[in-house]
Parts: sequence; structure tokens; C-alpha cells
Amino acid sequence: MQAIIDFVLELDKLKGVTRKTRPLGLDRQENSAEHSWQIALLASSLAPYAPQALDMNRVVAMLLVHDIGEIDTGDTIAYAEEGWQERKAAELAAVQRIFGLLPSEQAARFLALWQEFEDAATPEARFAHAADRAMPVLLNLANSGQSWRENGISYERVVKRIRPPIETGCPALWAYLDGQLRHAQTQGWFGA
Amino acid sequence: MQAIIDFVLELDKLKGVTRKTRPLGLDRQENSAEHSWQIALLASSLAPYAPQALDMNRVVAMLLVHDIGEIDTGDTIAYAEEGWQERKAAELAAVQRIFGLLPSEQAARFLALWQEFEDAATPEARFAHAADRAMPVLLNLANSGQSWRENGISYERVVKRIRPPIETGCPALWAYLDGQLRHAQTQGWFGA
Repeated sequence: MQAIIDFVLELDKLKGVTRKTRPLGLDRQENSAEHSWQIALLASSLAPYAPQALDMNRVVAMLLVHDIGEIDTGDTIAYAEEGWQERKAAELAAVQRIFGLLPSEQAARFLALWQEFEDAATPEARFAHAADRAMPVLLNLANSGQSWRENGISYERVVKRIRPPIETGCPALWAYLDGQLRHAQTQGWFGA
Repeated sequence: MQAIIDFVLELDKLKGVTRKTRPLGLDRQENSAEHSWQIALLASSLAPYAPQALDMNRVVAMLLVHDIGEIDTGDTIAYAEEGWQERKAAELAAVQRIFGLLPSEQAARFLALWQEFEDAATPEARFAHAADRAMPVLLNLANSGQSWRENGISYERVVKRIRPPIETGCPALWAYLDGQLRHAQTQGWFGA
């Protein structure tokens, strides 16, 4: 029991890992814990638009654990292109440490979920990636492009980065976002 | 699709609903969105201590939606005893409004999960309640009783309030907390 409690208290640190996006109407940055909650519900709500029958419980479970490595590594904005391999190795070491606080059977289960998300090789993992990538875009679309403008992210860069994972994981979601992003471009919501 | 997006953006407001507890090491109050994420993982980790075989996916799903009514009603500390019925009616109206943003099938699914949690009549709902009630206690135990001291909550009041739901939903968790709470009392971590 103490091992489980130690793990859950360690999770508290994800509440202090901040992202670039701000929650709507709040004057602070979003953290990775509340983001994980929101995308679990986004994925769950999007189930009717999944491209095939999926185990949605596994999608939700993956999304709840996918950012836990950031406790040690911090969040990296999705547009950072350098040091990708080093970052992934550091995140793996982090989740091995953090899940390793748990009894081995549960540690292995969470690590398998985390790895499935990372590998993005199953339809469930791809659907989870689509939700994860779409959420900050949806917030930016509702926020007049707050983090795009603040971080100098162009329309082309957003589309290049998010189209492949979203179109692969949830084509209907990409079709929706495609129209919204074109509209956002006409509104000047992107950085240079 | 737009209905789902509207719902998920409405969820953003739960990030602004604050609780009495502070995340460990952070100088701000916890919000109900990050709390929901954490207790979903607490429940999931506690699965080996469930008093019987449970559908853990339903436990997790309940915990992800159980606080959504607070978007309209705000958080009420678990020790407030007045106005319980009015508060519950307001929360029901809130989740009917918020889940009502979704297509009817998904709205009904989330509302059923919310109601199952509220009714606390299934072993899954009782286990979910145990996790929900235990989490602020665990944070207080790791925080030298921060919110107990700040809000004048006594040892007796904590035990009276949390023992029944936790002992019913997850006896092994209560056994653990019982020892920890007695220790906390010797440390002076409670309010008057």
C-alpha cells in the first residue's frame, strides 16, 4: 500500500509542469495533469468518430499516463524539433523511475500503456495521439491563437506538425480542424 | 463534431474551480480538473486492494466526470454539512446542462456514470468514492495537515467524515489511513 501512495504523491508533481497554452479565461499556463484529464474526456467523447471499433478504455488509460515522464523532463512544446531522441530517452528513464515506485505488476501495466502510446503503432494509440495533438489546437482556436502568436508558430508549421497524427488517428477530427485552421489563418491568429 | 468540441471547451472551466488543498510544493490551490486526473490514477493503482473484482474502467470513467458539475456550482469542501440537498440539486442541473452539450447518446452515457457515482450503490462507485475521499487526506498527510489546519478541521471530524465511505469502498485503504491519521494527530496536524 505504501508503494502505491508514494507513486500517487509523486504524480502530484505533474500539476507543476506547465505547458504553453493557457486555460480559457485564466491568466496562467495550463499544466500537464489537467491537460491529461481533458484529453481523456476528449477521446472518450470522440468515440463515435473513431475510424474503427476501438478499446476506448485503453485509449483513456494511455492518455492518463502519457505525460507522466514530464515530471522529470518538463513539457516540450510540440513544435520543438531538436533533440528528439535524447528527449525520448529521458522520458523513458523518467517513467521507469516513476512507475517503478509501484509494485511490479502495476508498474509493468502502466509502462506498457506508456510505451504503446509512444510507439503509436495500434489504432488505440493513434486515436490517443489525435486527441493529444488536437487539444491545444482547439484551445488556440478558442483563444484567438494565444500560444501560436506568443511562440511565433505559423499556420504551415501547425498543419505540418499536427495533420499526420490527427488525420491518421481520427480522420473526421482532422477534417473539422482543417476548416477551422483555414479560418484561423484568415483571422491572423498565427505567429510569423 | 462541433457539439463534442463545445463540450470539451466547456470542460476547460473545471481547471478554474479551486479546492482547499494545495499541490505538494506549489503555492496555489489545487483545481478539480487535475484532482480528477490524480484520483483516476489512484483508483487504477489501488485495483489490487479492491474488496472484490471490479470493472476498473468504469471506476476511472466515473472519477473523470464526477466533479464536472462544479463548473456551475464550485467546489464545496467535504466537511460542509449544510445545504446538502440544494447542492446536489444544483450539481444535477449543472451536469444536465454540460453533458447536454453532447449528442444524446454520449450525454446519456456520461450522465449515467455521474449518477452511478452519486448514488454510491455499486461496488465500483463505492471504490471510486474511497479514492476521491482519500486523495485530499493523502495530500494533507504529506503536507503536515495544511488544509486541516487552515480550515480548522479536527481529527474527529476527518475520521467521522471519511471513514464510512473509505472503509466501505476499500477497507485496505482505510486500514492504512487509520494508522496514518493517528500518527498525524500525535503530530498536531489538525485544526481545533
